[in-house]
Amino acid sequence: MSTRGDTFSRRGLLAAAAAVPILAGPSWAGAVRAQGDPLPSWNDRAPKRAILDFVGRVSREGGPDFVLPARRVAVFDNDGTLWAEQPIYFQVAFALDRVKALAPEHPDWKEAQPFKGIVEGDLKAVAASGERGLLQVMAATHAGMTTEAFNATVADWLRTARHPRFNRPYDSLVYQPMLELLAYLRASGFKTFIVSGGGVEFMRVFAERTYGIPPEQVVGSSGVTKFEMGPDGTPALVKEAKVAFIDDGPGKPSGIDRFIGRQPILAFGNSDGDQQMLEWTAAGAGPRFLGLVHHTDAEREFAYDRQSHVGRLNQALDEAGRRGWTVVDMRQDWKQVFPPAPRSER
Amino acid sequence: MSTRGDTFSRRGLLAAAAAVPILAGPSWAGAVRAQGDPLPSWNDRAPKRAILDFVGRVSREGGPDFVLPARRVAVFDNDGTLWAEQPIYFQVAFALDRVKALAPEHPDWKEAQPFKGIVEGDLKAVAASGERGLLQVMAATHAGMTTEAFNATVADWLRTARHPRFNRPYDSLVYQPMLELLAYLRASGFKTFIVSGGGVEFMRVFAERTYGIPPEQVVGSSGVTKFEMGPDGTPALVKEAKVAFIDDGPGKPSGIDRFIGRQPILAFGNSDGDQQMLEWTAAGAGPRFLGLVHHTDAEREFAYDRQSHVGRLNQALDEAGRRGWTVVDMRQDWKQVFPPAPRSER
Repeated sequence: MSTRGDTFSRRGLLAAAAAVPILAGPSWAGAVRAQGDPLPSWNDRAPKRAILDFVGRVSREGGPDFVLPARRVAVFDNDGTLWAEQPIYFQVAFALDRVKALAPEHPDWKEAQPFKGIVEGDLKAVAASGERGLLQVMAATHAGMTTEAFNATVADWLRTARHPRFNRPYDSLVYQPMLELLAYLRASGFKTFIVSGGGVEFMRVFAERTYGIPPEQVVGSSGVTKFEMGPDGTPALVKEAKVAFIDDGPGKPSGIDRFIGRQPILAFGNSDGDQQMLEWTAAGAGPRFLGLVHHTDAEREFAYDRQSHVGRLNQALDEAGRRGWTVVDMRQDWKQVFPPAPRSER
Repeated sequence: MSTRGDTFSRRGLLAAAAAVPILAGPSWAGAVRAQGDPLPSWNDRAPKRAILDFVGRVSREGGPDFVLPARRVAVFDNDGTLWAEQPIYFQVAFALDRVKALAPEHPDWKEAQPFKGIVEGDLKAVAASGERGLLQVMAATHAGMTTEAFNATVADWLRTARHPRFNRPYDSLVYQPMLELLAYLRASGFKTFIVSGGGVEFMRVFAERTYGIPPEQVVGSSGVTKFEMGPDGTPALVKEAKVAFIDDGPGKPSGIDRFIGRQPILAFGNSDGDQQMLEWTAAGAGPRFLGLVHHTDAEREFAYDRQSHVGRLNQALDEAGRRGWTVVDMRQDWKQVFPPAPRSER
């Protein structure tokens, strides 16, 4: 459990204590969709050209780099690659909000850390409870209920919770350029997958409507579930407070192998937790595309890399340089970061 | 490990000791494909009519039972449902053959059970080594190598090994009526999955070419893999002798939840290990189809149910009666069992 817990702690409850100050609102560039350009939110720079070149080559029948559609598997990290992850991973924000919502039913939490600190907004106390505290929070918010009840809770949170800086629903803080890339890949015969350290059930609640990625193409960390037959003959799956699989770092190639069973030909990530996924994708014969999103845009989103508690990009950035992976400079490469807010959000 | 090992022992090394006598060759009915009949190898009886009725209802747009294509998830057990499983599970036959092939490299096996018994054909000694022996066999034949090397070994075995009774490659002993059902479902907008207690990597070697089911739609039991970076910067996944997940019995609903993330609307199995998968599929609103293959055909295939060591069908058969599931009587419902042998096999 100790090595597994490490992932959750990296995944950021501690980072809550280091939350960046809340800045001013976003400033989107207008969304002008160039005729026939599948990636209109991407500036005409090296990463965009590399993507267009790669997709063109693997889908050109009879060409030297042609890849059969069944083998056009593309994998994407989620946090920091498809949607934002600052100031704390959104799933951690969900867990903290759940603790606050559940507190009235748990009078014992009034004196027990990390629950007391979460309810009172004392993030220092929360951080001091360390990994053990985080596991308690995950157990209290992600276990002891049916999968159905959990999904309903996540859906409700996505409807009602707002990001502290942008004041928008969390699932609207997805990257417009990456949505275009997903759609372009699918239109080019690719099958798109999420391969994320985040919880698989948490992501599946929004992945289909947000990214067009169906539940069966979402790979993530998972807990143990237990099949229980009710007295009326209706079964349920109950989520237990046991980790089944951590899909992060060297776990990502194992997750790809276990859940997908094919080596991808395209992988996109943004942090050191994605390094092995990109290395695994790069291995083997034939054309490959490896990409990293580099968060360089403090004005429109966030700027962080080698020192960040959340989504640290350090070793993988060095590796990208050595291996010639494509590094997307958010500030320079993306015309716009988030989709415009729908009328209902304004 | 002890409860997990139980699955492997049910899965049949012990059954090797109880192997039925080898009977005469098969006697296929000729494959006459009726014009426009999607299930030509099925006799016109209740199970066929129930399948046609169900598929018609869920795919009739505007009808009361219409189901969106994205939700038309169909799950199939493999051993005994899509291909044969007697006299021993085919993956166990593979493991035994591997022990024989590897024996020259392992002089220590000459005196150690169960290896000695396997090499000498002393199945009583093999059975006497029990669960511990079986785990040793699985570790020796399914671990300590890269995933790539394992896949190559399975592919080679499928090319060269022959079933003791039918003298045909194991992957030709698939059920023609079920191949027709898989194709019919896919043509009707279903996504077809395997959900099997067998090893996921073992099945993926042949599932795509044999059943038209791609690797990412195969759910099964799995071992732990470890990501290792070679000195030349080429990574590999090494299979370890640790069980990660047993996809059998109550594990099947958990496997469906973890790997697919949707509740199926059609499930087909053949043994008690499939009962919870069918119960889970039956739960929830909307039309459902639940089917069991009942092995009643000693002449063309095998006849076994409540007492069998391999693929026991006892409690689930009672449950089928109580819940009104469709039970396919192989002898009466299927015009032909296996596809005709291709020229190369004759």
